[in-house]
Amino acid sequence: MSTTAEQAVGPDRKGAATRAAILDHAVDLASVEGLEGLTIGRLAADLKMSKSGLFAHFGSKQDLQLATVAAAAERFRAVVVEPALAAPRGAPRLRAMVEGYFDHIELYSGGCFWGATSAEYDDRPGPVRDAIAAALDAWLAALAGNARDAGVADPDRFAFEVYAVVMAANARFRLSGDRRVFDYARDVLARLTAELPA
Amino acid sequence: MSTTAEQAVGPDRKGAATRAAILDHAVDLASVEGLEGLTIGRLAADLKMSKSGLFAHFGSKQDLQLATVAAAAERFRAVVVEPALAAPRGAPRLRAMVEGYFDHIELYSGGCFWGATSAEYDDRPGPVRDAIAAALDAWLAALAGNARDAGVADPDRFAFEVYAVVMAANARFRLSGDRRVFDYARDVLARLTAELPA
Repeated sequence: MSTTAEQAVGPDRKGAATRAAILDHAVDLASVEGLEGLTIGRLAADLKMSKSGLFAHFGSKQDLQLATVAAAAERFRAVVVEPALAAPRGAPRLRAMVEGYFDHIELYSGGCFWGATSAEYDDRPGPVRDAIAAALDAWLAALAGNARDAGVADPDRFAFEVYAVVMAANARFRLSGDRRVFDYARDVLARLTAELPA
Repeated sequence: MSTTAEQAVGPDRKGAATRAAILDHAVDLASVEGLEGLTIGRLAADLKMSKSGLFAHFGSKQDLQLATVAAAAERFRAVVVEPALAAPRGAPRLRAMVEGYFDHIELYSGGCFWGATSAEYDDRPGPVRDAIAAALDAWLAALAGNARDAGVADPDRFAFEVYAVVMAANARFRLSGDRRVFDYARDVLARLTAELPA
């Protein structure tokens, strides 16, 4: 997956910056409207750009959707994964990943990008679904791998439980507006990480 | 909420049966395509009916969506809630509700209707969103009420945890195809209900 930094290397730094700004808005918009709601016309209107200017960056709606999924994965890496890597391997790093994951759901206008788009695309075979599924698989595998490093007996189940409670807090809050669900989620995550071997 | 049985009382039993058959398909189709994908044209094609025949039952797309949400709520009541009411109040009834909830996610072609449609509508204000939110609120309240009857210390948190693990199994299975998530979910639910006061 190419990163914003990699894209900025080359002659067209302004173009890369524009592309990054478009994708930043696209990730947020997709959290609200879904990836189907992500049209070049809608983005052009929101960003006060011409449609042809946007077409220059993304030739088709599917290219735009795929670039948006990649940008969301990059945001997730930068906000959740990267900071956790600063913590020592094992339980401290796992705790940092879990906390970062929980905190990150408030970064989007429409709640977690992955919660919104995975429900939208689970039954739509194609490259967009594959990209979403791969990103989520990679995240669950990273959680499980770090749980294994931390000595958790059943790392895949641990990863599943973390995912379950974070995504449920996201989904319930989006629909009910009741912030108590964040307390419930925090309690369950604290219980899960309290059980970690020292 | 009117039930299929109530609708069948009256002169037009054939019309009520047709309406019920349409809605049965609509619930299943919405689990795959979402409620936005639910058009009168698509339903007419699937059911080999005329569009005008369908318009006679549902005047607008929104009427169709609202009737579909009501039909899904009725299916949920019949499959999950009603059978649990046969169990004695307290822990036995709560266990039956939890098990029925877990089992019901395999009743739809596209995974749980509520998982699919709540993610689709959480950011679309209006009567469809309100109907989905009300149905989910009622279910969480029913779970919490029965958890209270069963002597659970924090019934709302218990309900949240049950919802979290069932919806996560649904979401992960739809995207990864990995049935191990059902085992994880079953383990967590067994742990939650094992802790119930006798």
